[in-house]
Amino acid sequence: MKVVFQQLDVRTSGRKELVDLTDRIEQVVEESGLKEGMCLITTLHTTSCIIINEHEEGLMQDIVAKLRTDFPNDGKWLHNRIDDNADAHLASSFLGPSKVLPIRDGVLVRGTWQNIFLMELDGPRKRTVLVELLGN
Amino acid sequence: MKVVFQQLDVRTSGRKELVDLTDRIEQVVEESGLKEGMCLITTLHTTSCIIINEHEEGLMQDIVAKLRTDFPNDGKWLHNRIDDNADAHLASSFLGPSKVLPIRDGVLVRGTWQNIFLMELDGPRKRTVLVELLGN
Amino acid sequence: MKVVFQQLDVRTSGRKELVDLTDRIEQVVEESGLKEGMCLITTLHTTSCIIINEHEEGLMQDIVAKLRTDFPNDGKWLHNRIDDNADAHLASSFLGPSKVLPIRDGVLVRGTWQNIFLMELDGPRKRTVLVELLGN
Repeated sequence: MKVVFQQLDVRTSGRKELVDLTDRIEQVVEESGLKEGMCLITTLHTTSCIIINEHEEGLMQDIVAKLRTDFPNDGKWLHNRIDDNADAHLASSFLGPSKVLPIRDGVLVRGTWQNIFLMELDGPRKRTVLVELLGN
Repeated sequence: MKVVFQQLDVRTSGRKELVDLTDRIEQVVEESGLKEGMCLITTLHTTSCIIINEHEEGLMQDIVAKLRTDFPNDGKWLHNRIDDNADAHLASSFLGPSKVLPIRDGVLVRGTWQNIFLMELDGPRKRTVLVELLGN
Repeated sequence: MKVVFQQLDVRTSGRKELVDLTDRIEQVVEESGLKEGMCLITTLHTTSCIIINEHEEGLMQDIVAKLRTDFPNDGKWLHNRIDDNADAHLASSFLGPSKVLPIRDGVLVRGTWQNIFLMELDGPRKRTVLVELLGN
């Protein structure tokens, strides 16, 4: 059994935005030479998350709009006494920091429309995403 | 270490509905002969997800009702300019396409009330769920 | 390849509360001697979940408040005909029962602010959380 790690550095440019990491993650899988196993993608922060969905510009704006509506930063949060990003922590808590996908026949298994994004919730920042592959 | 894949084909019949896959997944684990490891269940679509909860008919209707309320398809979404299912993409983005459970002593580890469902968000459709087992 | 299981027993004291399990999980990793692999943390219940975020008392109260607002137990739910905790089942369905984190260089990989919590949604109860390590 083989375990491979690859750290991805991501610089975000807006407060809330989606950054597509699919190509970079597929390259990690390809270069690893792994034939079958699992791929764990995890962000090492409490104000971002990893989500999987279609890379369509309208939808990507919809996701940001929905997060702004569902997790407003309206000042009533206790965490905002010491910082100003409770909205981002709450969204990250609910959506989660990681996703796991299969590796099969040497490639990452994903549906036609399934792209992998870092969801920035409190940018702009420099983010670290860790990709771990485990398998044969 | 052994890796086993089993594709489950699922035909859904409503726009939003839960399909219980627990028996089929447990059968995959049993037939694999694996004694200990991890089981990854993932839907290969951007308008469905995998959720784990109790198989109680009232609760299953509550989950569908809650998704309709929290992710309404009210026409304001940009994605609906090119399709009519932004609600399904948004719910899928927030809830996620996969779950991981342990395998121990040759069986899938789950609590008494934990059943595994495909959550259809934009049916009726033919769906593909991939089950991957990795272990000894 | 090695697989290690450790069951954590957790007694909760409020209806909705966060219990920090980070130290106990890190101890499991340390005692296992595993150098690299994956760590799966899963609650075996349908009215609790595992979340990852900052251990800041204000934020922890914000998360509980947000769950109360987003998943109210207002009596309209069908599941409440046979029980009184549909709110807890719904939140658990949406947030999910498990998380996966990497193990690298003998330690659990997590960001500076990422702590691991059992989110009790229908306490007080005695809960079982299973930690599984898989790797070398």
